[in-house]
Amino acid sequence: MTILLYDLVGHDTARPFSPHCWKTKMALAHKGLGATKVPTRFLEVPKVEGGVSKTVPVIRDGERVVADSFAIALYLDEAYPERPTLFGGEGGKATARFIERWSQLTIHPYIATVALTDLHAMQDVPNAAYFRENREQRYGKRLEDVVANRDAGLTAFRAALEPLRSTLTYQPFIGGEAPLFADYIVFGALQWGRIASPFQLLDDSDSIAHWFERCLDLHGGIGRQVAAAA
Amino acid sequence: MTILLYDLVGHDTARPFSPHCWKTKMALAHKGLGATKVPTRFLEVPKVEGGVSKTVPVIRDGERVVADSFAIALYLDEAYPERPTLFGGEGGKATARFIERWSQLTIHPYIATVALTDLHAMQDVPNAAYFRENREQRYGKRLEDVVANRDAGLTAFRAALEPLRSTLTYQPFIGGEAPLFADYIVFGALQWGRIASPFQLLDDSDSIAHWFERCLDLHGGIGRQVAAAA
Repeated sequence: MTILLYDLVGHDTARPFSPHCWKTKMALAHKGLGATKVPTRFLEVPKVEGGVSKTVPVIRDGERVVADSFAIALYLDEAYPERPTLFGGEGGKATARFIERWSQLTIHPYIATVALTDLHAMQDVPNAAYFRENREQRYGKRLEDVVANRDAGLTAFRAALEPLRSTLTYQPFIGGEAPLFADYIVFGALQWGRIASPFQLLDDSDSIAHWFERCLDLHGGIGRQVAAAA
Repeated sequence: MTILLYDLVGHDTARPFSPHCWKTKMALAHKGLGATKVPTRFLEVPKVEGGVSKTVPVIRDGERVVADSFAIALYLDEAYPERPTLFGGEGGKATARFIERWSQLTIHPYIATVALTDLHAMQDVPNAAYFRENREQRYGKRLEDVVANRDAGLTAFRAALEPLRSTLTYQPFIGGEAPLFADYIVFGALQWGRIASPFQLLDDSDSIAHWFERCLDLHGGIGRQVAAAA
């Protein structure tokens, strides 16, 4: 039986944008596991699998339902140990958590800011209304006013990526010679930005941009199957 | 034959302060390997083992000489595979590099600033002269002028540690349920600050301070054998 993946989409189901769902799509591809995607809009998330989670991704694998991209990756490595590992051992599991926390706290806040109005424009009417209300409450200002500051934050954002840039002087992937889930964590964040917004997050000459291109090439280029926002 | 460790010291050989040498001391203890420490001052580093490295730690294990704390940890896991692992697999090796780069770029610059005059005061006369000249060239100002700004940087420093703080809500060590070299990387940095300077880097209630205390307890409390600067 194929794995079901509840994948966040806007009005165009062919442009799934969620960073966390991208982590899971890369993880499934890494394991060589097919999945049937269930396009899911923000307002449908609370109904996924009887309301198991406030967020997607959620997967159903036979009788087993798992929510949260990190938990899903751990599940996949445990359930399919004969397929390529996502963590490369127990140490890799533990330190991937650090990379997830770093990505969430260093990369996500800025991309969220950059892409806010673009993400709003990707939703259908009821989901756009939800998104605006939810996010304007979170930020305490209008979406347009949050996005207005994005140019001012770019230099600091790029500088904050220096630990990753420096890591890539030692090895081609965060996971070493080949990618691991740690790569997909950061890839998911940047893929979210790539699909949602034409705003250029990275300079073309940045080694992180080169690593991101390598990630887009992985697993038959599934990351490229959705074009960058224009 | 015991492993030799060239360990950076000032005028008091009982107060070794180098963050990188502390990483190696914790790594050796983790592997259950004894080591004979060779107290080494800044001006003696270029003569260590025939000038094999510009920095310490350097170890000699029989015929093998290895420099650089990360390379030493890799060497120890390879040479002593039957002893407790420092990385927990290949994935852990790769992602520990990211943590090293994060620690070096996020923690080290601030502690270096905080402890600059204290580190100067720990050196004997010729090494103090070397240290002042070398560091004043690096910073482009007097040591005292660098340190004068340390209070202003404290809030940003503590905030920059958020990825570690957040990781510790998932697990007691960076390495998971038990420490790995990834923990010793960050421990080394904070131990450098603890031994060199009375400046309080972390609030006592900070979960990172609690983790640091747990690290000080490891391996018979070798980290506590050197008292905090008063």
